[in-house]
Amino acid sequence: MTAREADTALGAAAAALLGDRRLIIVTNRGPITFASAADGSLRPRRGSGGLVTALGQVGRHVPVTWIAAAMTEGDRRAAADPRLLRQVAGDDDAIRLRFASVERSVYEQAYNVIANPFLWFLQHQMWSLPERPVIDAATMRAWHRGYVALNEAFASAVLAQTRADRRPRIMLHDYHLYTAADPIRRARPNAVLSHFTHIPWPPSSIWQNIAPAIREGIAGGLLANDVVGFQTRRYAHNFLRMIESFVPDAKVDYDEWSVRRQRRTIHVRHYPISIDIDATLRVAGSRAARRRADELLGGTRERVIVRVDRLEPSKNILRGFLAYEALLQRHAALRGAISFLAFLVPSRTGLREYGDYGRKVQNAVDGINARFGRAGWRPVQLFYENDYAQALAGLSIADVVLVNPLVDGMNLVAKEAVIVSQRDAVLVLSETAGAFDQMADGALPVAPADVVGTAEALATALAMPVEERQRRLAKLRRGVEREDISWWLRRQLEDLAQLTG
Amino acid sequence: MTAREADTALGAAAAALLGDRRLIIVTNRGPITFASAADGSLRPRRGSGGLVTALGQVGRHVPVTWIAAAMTEGDRRAAADPRLLRQVAGDDDAIRLRFASVERSVYEQAYNVIANPFLWFLQHQMWSLPERPVIDAATMRAWHRGYVALNEAFASAVLAQTRADRRPRIMLHDYHLYTAADPIRRARPNAVLSHFTHIPWPPSSIWQNIAPAIREGIAGGLLANDVVGFQTRRYAHNFLRMIESFVPDAKVDYDEWSVRRQRRTIHVRHYPISIDIDATLRVAGSRAARRRADELLGGTRERVIVRVDRLEPSKNILRGFLAYEALLQRHAALRGAISFLAFLVPSRTGLREYGDYGRKVQNAVDGINARFGRAGWRPVQLFYENDYAQALAGLSIADVVLVNPLVDGMNLVAKEAVIVSQRDAVLVLSETAGAFDQMADGALPVAPADVVGTAEALATALAMPVEERQRRLAKLRRGVEREDISWWLRRQLEDLAQLTG
Repeated sequence: MTAREADTALGAAAAALLGDRRLIIVTNRGPITFASAADGSLRPRRGSGGLVTALGQVGRHVPVTWIAAAMTEGDRRAAADPRLLRQVAGDDDAIRLRFASVERSVYEQAYNVIANPFLWFLQHQMWSLPERPVIDAATMRAWHRGYVALNEAFASAVLAQTRADRRPRIMLHDYHLYTAADPIRRARPNAVLSHFTHIPWPPSSIWQNIAPAIREGIAGGLLANDVVGFQTRRYAHNFLRMIESFVPDAKVDYDEWSVRRQRRTIHVRHYPISIDIDATLRVAGSRAARRRADELLGGTRERVIVRVDRLEPSKNILRGFLAYEALLQRHAALRGAISFLAFLVPSRTGLREYGDYGRKVQNAVDGINARFGRAGWRPVQLFYENDYAQALAGLSIADVVLVNPLVDGMNLVAKEAVIVSQRDAVLVLSETAGAFDQMADGALPVAPADVVGTAEALATALAMPVEERQRRLAKLRRGVEREDISWWLRRQLEDLAQLTG
Repeated sequence: MTAREADTALGAAAAALLGDRRLIIVTNRGPITFASAADGSLRPRRGSGGLVTALGQVGRHVPVTWIAAAMTEGDRRAAADPRLLRQVAGDDDAIRLRFASVERSVYEQAYNVIANPFLWFLQHQMWSLPERPVIDAATMRAWHRGYVALNEAFASAVLAQTRADRRPRIMLHDYHLYTAADPIRRARPNAVLSHFTHIPWPPSSIWQNIAPAIREGIAGGLLANDVVGFQTRRYAHNFLRMIESFVPDAKVDYDEWSVRRQRRTIHVRHYPISIDIDATLRVAGSRAARRRADELLGGTRERVIVRVDRLEPSKNILRGFLAYEALLQRHAALRGAISFLAFLVPSRTGLREYGDYGRKVQNAVDGINARFGRAGWRPVQLFYENDYAQALAGLSIADVVLVNPLVDGMNLVAKEAVIVSQRDAVLVLSETAGAFDQMADGALPVAPADVVGTAEALATALAMPVEERQRRLAKLRRGVEREDISWWLRRQLEDLAQLTG
């Protein structure tokens, strides 16, 4: 399918699902957020992040009403001022932005007690379980009065936007919105509802550790949708098993990937997310990015290993450096002949675990540079900033791209890397990344705790003949081109139309 | 089935499997270990632990050759002196002890690098995964030259004891012996081999983190058996999924609970282990235990909560005390009216994690006693010693027994508690304990991280009318009586005979 054909198919899928309706998209973070300027006026600022980019696409084809949480005071003021929102949307009204607004304290409970430090940690298995989490009275309060209350506010906003429609089409996204479908379903029994979880879905044994009210709230909330989507087949399977374990009145059909409950059928599917290839190439091909790539290359030795990640414990950055250290130790010939460029983006700096982890990463880098570095050669170059163009520039000059997360819903860096590579990069990819399902054939696999194996994979990648590098990269590239962001979106729209038709 | 009938059935099952053979039992820790006395002679000492008690039973019915690791210098000397071993076995030769002996350094690698700090931690999910484990060169060396080498020594010892037999009957036990079946199978293709894992079997996502050589060694090693046994249905299922994930030439049949590989069929079963009821009652009914029960009761207030555990992070002792603290905080009427007796047995004191955890437990206890205690009332009484009779005495006087492990292969305290209770104890039991599968009906369930829910379960238990307590306890007691240690053993012997017949 050419890009134009794909575009047409996406438009057709959207039209088939929606008719003359607007598509309702609901996410925690919206495409635009508002900051108060010095003069008291509100200034819109484009949101970042893959999800916003991905979902923004659909606005090119069908009118979208996008409902996001009011995260800032500016957002809360804008929520109360429809004129302002209209003005931001521009003339074409392609994407109409609306806010779900709750009191700041409610949002704080939902976001800073439940979503990020609890659900994210739980689903990425980031705790030392003998001690954490501790589900105490404060946690339960934050669940009921923060998370569930925010989800009810999202539901109210959806209902307000779809008043005339008995069968609105609504797509809910990610771990902030597990319980929103339930109040929508009660008010609009015929609504067409989907939820997509962007992060991993762990096995039942992990859910079994937490309070029944929370895990049953999540399970029941998701079952109020018509389609429940995940990144991978395994996550979808884990969800089915969770339902079997914790929802006694639900009947799970593993062959059909569906759940029967209260005379409704819920379809469980997987849709691996991807990147907008044109947009990625546009940034990577910009003059600024190309200049930066040249500069970076000027500062490296012959061979270049690159990683790009948020500074995030689940990205397994520490063991990546341990593996590089083992590589230098075992392969003396590489010393002085290789550079490791690590582009790390600041993330959740307010959470203690992230600060602690960042210090350990810095110590590991300092240790390697002190142990192996010499005049004119720094084994690791660390870039700690949010500079997307620079990160793509780095990926473009890599001989080896290391993507070794402990666990990862998908991991788009792996996909960006094969698209922007200018030097036949070899991808070293964790088996536990969602992306591994699609990329196993071309990548070199590693188990995330296996530092020895990761060092060996790096050595194999560096020693690989250019023909094999090209063959692997071409295969990976074809895969990403075939299954891009438009494919991800289209399959969901098609399933929604077909499965609820 | 009466106790006598059960005994007869066990004897018949053993005879059907063995004919005139000896049963070969292989465990890391044997029923007897040797210490060097001051005069240089070797003194046998009876081993402790549930496994030794459980397997010792079978010696009453059929002749057993028991092969254990030489763990001490005394064991190594005894291994070289068959006369000494004969002398220990006594006249009837019911249990013939043999040692698998390897150099101390090899054993240290197997036991103190792989089995305890690695496999135990992995299978009980006791790590903070962003940082541990780190599988480095030392780990891989300990795996190959320690763990696998020790398993080969076990295999050699088995082969030496079964020289004349082309089809010996061999039962391997627990996480020290995952790879022993493989060399036995190669030397004796017709051997009848079973392995039973006493600890939890985690989901594939956990195994996926570690080095392929280790997880494939474990999977392949276990598949050299005819029957692979686990404590619960879920663990058996997790094993099947692991095989599907990591052993490409194996075909998994989920309906038949079997694996087909290299023209052999491997049966995967679950056999929940239990206690020797008579032996338990004998100790609990001893004069010493009854006196101790009276003394303990004399030092408590009206209502008594009891826990008995090794001091072990996976036992979730800390959150148990947090729940008790929440109980006292929310139910002021209980202050001064209740005692929490915690019998904690020292365990693996050489491992840093256990020491750290112990200090946190002590701090939690001190905190509660300081916060709520007053003249004449200590809210928590902590007993830190290995005194089995005292622990049973404690269980016998409990109103509520708290068994809230994070994860636990089975948990025999829950079963002992319902057998020795003199005061209609209510069992508060973690859903994640293996024992929960059999005891869900009578126990009050808790999710291990749910401190609020655990506090509520304790309150519910304390407020429960005596009729309901008796009804629940009677049901639990009938279950344990029906499915006791003899039942556990008999079903394995029967399956082995039938499935390999």
